[in-house]
Amino acid sequence: MKLDQIETPAALIDRPRMMRNIERMQAHMNALGVAFRPHVKTSKCVDVARAQRDAGARGITVSTLKEAEQFFAAGFSDILYAVGMVASKLPRALALKQSGCDLKLIVDNLESARGVAEFGRLHGVTFEVWIEIDTDGHRSGVKPGEARLIDIGRALHQDGARLGGVLTHAGSSYELNTAESLAALAEQERAGCVQAAERLREAGLPCDVVSVGSTPTALAARHLEGVTEVRAGVYVFFDLVMRNVGVCNMADLALSVLTTVIGHQADKGGAILDAGWMAMSRDRGTAKQTHDYGYGQPCTLDGSPLEGYTLTAANQEHGILANTGHPDGDITAHLPVGTRLLILPNHACATGAQYPAYHARLGADEIEVWDRFYGW
Amino acid sequence: MKLDQIETPAALIDRPRMMRNIERMQAHMNALGVAFRPHVKTSKCVDVARAQRDAGARGITVSTLKEAEQFFAAGFSDILYAVGMVASKLPRALALKQSGCDLKLIVDNLESARGVAEFGRLHGVTFEVWIEIDTDGHRSGVKPGEARLIDIGRALHQDGARLGGVLTHAGSSYELNTAESLAALAEQERAGCVQAAERLREAGLPCDVVSVGSTPTALAARHLEGVTEVRAGVYVFFDLVMRNVGVCNMADLALSVLTTVIGHQADKGGAILDAGWMAMSRDRGTAKQTHDYGYGQPCTLDGSPLEGYTLTAANQEHGILANTGHPDGDITAHLPVGTRLLILPNHACATGAQYPAYHARLGADEIEVWDRFYGW
Repeated sequence: MKLDQIETPAALIDRPRMMRNIERMQAHMNALGVAFRPHVKTSKCVDVARAQRDAGARGITVSTLKEAEQFFAAGFSDILYAVGMVASKLPRALALKQSGCDLKLIVDNLESARGVAEFGRLHGVTFEVWIEIDTDGHRSGVKPGEARLIDIGRALHQDGARLGGVLTHAGSSYELNTAESLAALAEQERAGCVQAAERLREAGLPCDVVSVGSTPTALAARHLEGVTEVRAGVYVFFDLVMRNVGVCNMADLALSVLTTVIGHQADKGGAILDAGWMAMSRDRGTAKQTHDYGYGQPCTLDGSPLEGYTLTAANQEHGILANTGHPDGDITAHLPVGTRLLILPNHACATGAQYPAYHARLGADEIEVWDRFYGW
Repeated sequence: MKLDQIETPAALIDRPRMMRNIERMQAHMNALGVAFRPHVKTSKCVDVARAQRDAGARGITVSTLKEAEQFFAAGFSDILYAVGMVASKLPRALALKQSGCDLKLIVDNLESARGVAEFGRLHGVTFEVWIEIDTDGHRSGVKPGEARLIDIGRALHQDGARLGGVLTHAGSSYELNTAESLAALAEQERAGCVQAAERLREAGLPCDVVSVGSTPTALAARHLEGVTEVRAGVYVFFDLVMRNVGVCNMADLALSVLTTVIGHQADKGGAILDAGWMAMSRDRGTAKQTHDYGYGQPCTLDGSPLEGYTLTAANQEHGILANTGHPDGDITAHLPVGTRLLILPNHACATGAQYPAYHARLGADEIEVWDRFYGW
């Protein structure tokens, strides 16, 4: 299949860029002496995860039990489900364990810890559970110094469960945009997670794994003493949010949306595309960053940005492209009906989620279809 | 299936509310003496569209050719594809026509009009095409008084095409919030579209159909002289954006997301839900309206809003619920881990799109699974 045979809108992966991104992260992890466990919620695509594994990744991280099921069926066994476990989801986790999946769960509260262990005892299964640590006040987790950390650890150190380690995610890294602040947060993430692990060990509890990570902190980390593994997801494609954070260049962005000009707002200097918010997602993650890219950055088919042009607005199946600096009075001639463009997205995880499959551009004009899935 | 057997997050349809919404719109259309052609892009669900047809709808509107194909396969034949046609999509439209689908296309420029007619001639098919009219400067279309309207009409009045009518969509209605301004825009939409039809007829061209609509203008219209049919989509579920526009009450909202409390931010008074932006969509359509609902309005399982509480933030699979007025210092007791809630969404079209299926609540505790689809 060639590029001009793809119907629009389509989610296009630039495979050479993706491979560079994978190699860059893996090389950094190797240099820091830690294992790397990519978060496959970004792609939900077996072909992408295989490329990450082939480059040296050990295990995967997932955000839904459906991802765990799909990747296990595709031959991935070492799977971390990195969203706090609750009782109602335990039967699916049990089914995975009983099928031979090396599934790890996480908890950040005593009630959930007790629930997992009790459910494991009841069904004669030992769930490996990691404790989620909050190192930046961003979302969930137990703070490294909290007394209940030990209580949770003890609840997981009995029949039905096995305390496997601790993990943290410094999601506030998305709000930063300097190398120094990112390196400082990476150190805070590392130090907090290691502190939690040491407290557990001092209490006589096992804590083999110390898992940290987010794409920005993973790339910014200067040393990872005490850490055993790192997790990151969006680095595989990167996106405009990550570009604003400062951890990639525009030429690293490996996911874009292929679109066609279907009309114009000639009086306003706008072109109407068949990529609206259904194709781009509603993500406006760059709105509060240093450069607001609207709903995305238009590029020509070779991936070169159309300087000054932005996807300024989006309806369900219509996107509006305009030159925000100098209204383009001759846009019908510059971008006639039928013109094809690429749009770089704000947030690759959100944009990819809108598509049943990616079109992967292997080289100059060779396309493969890579399935992806959705739902829970 | 019962409510407590559904895994979360899930998209829940309250069928009695949906049926009331369908009956309300159809009754209004019947009273105004026009046909009603629902836009099924909101649900992408055959079960929902059948309920609309059973209530009296004639034909459907779609936003993608995939919708056309899926609904045609499910027995719907009179289908309007209401996004401007371009050459690259004509082969799929041709296949539908040749399979017996009564497909209507739209164009808003001369190049596309000529392209459709030429393609029709080449393949021995007559495409019915409507001309899109711009009555509010919102998006696409030819303005009612533009000279090129007649040129486009003539390009469609020859072998390969048949000029079927005109249509318009006053999408700017979403920005209004008073009965008077909505009624005025409905009249502007009607008058502009009728004017375009009259100009075509005066030029000796046929123009059987005069099609107008958006949910707010459809409900606000006081008379529809000269109009033959109305289109609307989101009215079937309504949502928080429509509530802010003022065309429905909270108790009319028929789509919600079923979610489970998976943890807390006790120090900040927050509960962590398993409904993040993947479950709610990234739509923040209420951000610029009179009442900003964050990522959604939490309710108890009977559909009663939790007053003061909002889904204040969302990560991919985590939502943060908090009382924005009075931080809830005892939220771990008020909403313990495992609590199930409903979240009313900002935008039903965007939220539904995240799910492979709806769970339709038929009565007090009887659930059916209704498939939906996605992609292009």
